Amino acid sequence: MNNVPTASILTIGDEVLIGRTIDSNSAWLGSQLSSMGFEIRRHLTVQDKDEEIKYGLKELLAVSDVVITTGGLGPTEDDRTKPALAEFLGKKLIFSEEVWQWVIKYAQQKHIENPEIIRNQAEIIEGSEPLYNPEGSAPGLWIEHNDKVIVALPGVPWEMKAIFKQSVAPRLKEKFNLPEFKIKVIRTIGLPEASVRNKLKDLPNKLPENIQIGFYPSLIEVKIVLRGYDVDEKILEQWHHKIAKILGDIVYSLEDKPLAQVIGEILRQRQQTISTAESCTGGYLAHLITSIPGSSDYYLGTVVSYHNQVKSNLLGVPEEVLETQGAVSKPTVEQMVRGVRQIIGSDWAVATSGIAGPTGGTPEKPVGTVWIATGNNDRLSAIKFHFSGSRLDVITKAALMGLDMLRRMLEDKPMIDPNKIS
Amino acid sequence: MNNVPTASILTIGDEVLIGRTIDSNSAWLGSQLSSMGFEIRRHLTVQDKDEEIKYGLKELLAVSDVVITTGGLGPTEDDRTKPALAEFLGKKLIFSEEVWQWVIKYAQQKHIENPEIIRNQAEIIEGSEPLYNPEGSAPGLWIEHNDKVIVALPGVPWEMKAIFKQSVAPRLKEKFNLPEFKIKVIRTIGLPEASVRNKLKDLPNKLPENIQIGFYPSLIEVKIVLRGYDVDEKILEQWHHKIAKILGDIVYSLEDKPLAQVIGEILRQRQQTISTAESCTGGYLAHLITSIPGSSDYYLGTVVSYHNQVKSNLLGVPEEVLETQGAVSKPTVEQMVRGVRQIIGSDWAVATSGIAGPTGGTPEKPVGTVWIATGNNDRLSAIKFHFSGSRLDVITKAALMGLDMLRRMLEDKPMIDPNKIS
Repeated sequence: MNNVPTASILTIGDEVLIGRTIDSNSAWLGSQLSSMGFEIRRHLTVQDKDEEIKYGLKELLAVSDVVITTGGLGPTEDDRTKPALAEFLGKKLIFSEEVWQWVIKYAQQKHIENPEIIRNQAEIIEGSEPLYNPEGSAPGLWIEHNDKVIVALPGVPWEMKAIFKQSVAPRLKEKFNLPEFKIKVIRTIGLPEASVRNKLKDLPNKLPENIQIGFYPSLIEVKIVLRGYDVDEKILEQWHHKIAKILGDIVYSLEDKPLAQVIGEILRQRQQTISTAESCTGGYLAHLITSIPGSSDYYLGTVVSYHNQVKSNLLGVPEEVLETQGAVSKPTVEQMVRGVRQIIGSDWAVATSGIAGPTGGTPEKPVGTVWIATGNNDRLSAIKFHFSGSRLDVITKAALMGLDMLRRMLEDKPMIDPNKIS
Repeated sequence: MNNVPTASILTIGDEVLIGRTIDSNSAWLGSQLSSMGFEIRRHLTVQDKDEEIKYGLKELLAVSDVVITTGGLGPTEDDRTKPALAEFLGKKLIFSEEVWQWVIKYAQQKHIENPEIIRNQAEIIEGSEPLYNPEGSAPGLWIEHNDKVIVALPGVPWEMKAIFKQSVAPRLKEKFNLPEFKIKVIRTIGLPEASVRNKLKDLPNKLPENIQIGFYPSLIEVKIVLRGYDVDEKILEQWHHKIAKILGDIVYSLEDKPLAQVIGEILRQRQQTISTAESCTGGYLAHLITSIPGSSDYYLGTVVSYHNQVKSNLLGVPEEVLETQGAVSKPTVEQMVRGVRQIIGSDWAVATSGIAGPTGGTPEKPVGTVWIATGNNDRLSAIKFHFSGSRLDVITKAALMGLDMLRRMLEDKPMIDPNKIS
């Protein structure tokens, strides 16, 4: 990794420090910059104070070729980025007539009656280049300083992203000689990180020096990432497939695609359709499916049956089953699959019924108990799970596990053992 | 803010730097620590390298009474936090028989066959106190150093949170003399941040010095936060209500509750019920409602009718309407409200139909066009919106705006002008 250009990100704002805002900007910028070939050195978040911003610039410029700041470019008094940057560089803030004309035009479009109140948006640092903002009133700034580059961007994510894509990325690619960054991802579902690592034994130590491996667990998924600079594509692919083979049927994507997209692609290819019948997941399963662009090609609809009356009237779960075995039971989810397939007319269906909590649990069916079923005209499989965590954790795990049961059925793979899941 | 104890957060991990993981840990810790009364000085993220971790500790300890690190405590070679911390402090890593017994017990519970492979989880820094992890194999560490405190926590969010709540928060409260931190929140929906600020004019400058105001926009919401240390409760409340009054009917909560909870509380109090009929929101509206614990008291169910056949068969939208006016039309969403109320039997319903994109738009109905209707037996209101942004943006905005139309109807407030929304 010698001579790889380096980049750091400086976030300015008390709201990030006190956790009112999650700093998704730094993650997004880190991902963009590392994909372009930069080594990311540090992320730093400081208070809206001139001294702190100057400290951040000094520390990050000491180890980075590029420093990108986000936040503090707005029109109010607590927006300190431009004054602090000017002082740090020993430059003046000057009023740009060109930027002001752009601000006036922006204000007209947005029906802002009195653009004078945001007049200071037209102030730029002398020698800097304004980067026009397609989404807001605060332009970014591009500053070259002793062979290094400082870019100041607004903190509002969609404004920051728009300026970065339009004006920053092309300029950075032109200015720096960037190595090729390669990355391969394996997405798995069902097993906890420890079990996934266990399956690979000491394989990570055998990887070539220029390939790094990372394990990134979320609720019931683990992403394995292989990455490196100027790596031989063939060697990277060999390791990618070798690891996927060892991990076996917990792997659902080698292309970093979400599970709902993987299923969608299988269904589209087979020209088959799907519907869902949801109780405890409350529409989240449908949301995962419909988040994928083009899902209307294979997704027909959903019945969320929170109330038992809806389970019996719309989905045909016999009242007797609901009375004797309860809504959280095998015959209930099995009939939910049959019922929703019938009224919506889909090839496949997934159904969930469980206790998401925090209340509603019993000694026999504690919070986290979820029955999930999936099937088509010929096959039907139902499994009882015990998911840990908050209400939202249980909902999310149940929805993902429902999708994974369908994936396994579509791919003719055995169902997962519910006692081994994370 | 003199003499307020200060805290900073050090995140260790390349995966955060390159944006593979969003650093929600720092936001959560910042929120917890600031609520406890700490002033948050800095967040810093560094690479998994001993030199970088030592740099981070030195820089943050220079300005903070408490430094909390997350990440790098796992059993693998690239987990560098403990060795780097030991070197920074000039202490040794020692094997703790007590921690080892705990690790063995943990491994048994999790069916990890060979706990020897995670033997180094029992290594602690001499003089440190292990903080047992209720959710994983990596214990945290509590270290007192020259009147300051260093706490090392794992990077997995639920493990970090569990240790913080159980072991760190109580110890910090005991050790530090913390001022009372007060916070009041106003949640608004519909207008962009610039318009919200505009309504308040120069009011923010008139606030007492020890009360700070912040504006936190998300997609179509703006949160206004008033906060300060040792503020007079009555004065804070006066400003809280004054600002809410100026902002008027865009305010939906003075208690920092999500919109779905506000609506749920009104419905529960009136003993009324709700259902939804969703096309473009694809179950997300149902998910927002069912994310609230106890929503089964008032939420009955949903029909997601992605396919037109479901709109006509289940919800009774006449095929003639679908043919002549289209699925994205006023009569369609109006009938969806009537139809879902009828088959599910709820008092109220919300219906959505639109084009979430990225494809499917036409010159007459471009991507982002969404019809939303809400009503009960007596009233019915339908509005056409044009939402900007990605597929997920349009889905989220439409679902939230549907909830807000219902809130306005429940509270007898006028509907929002769709041309003014953000």
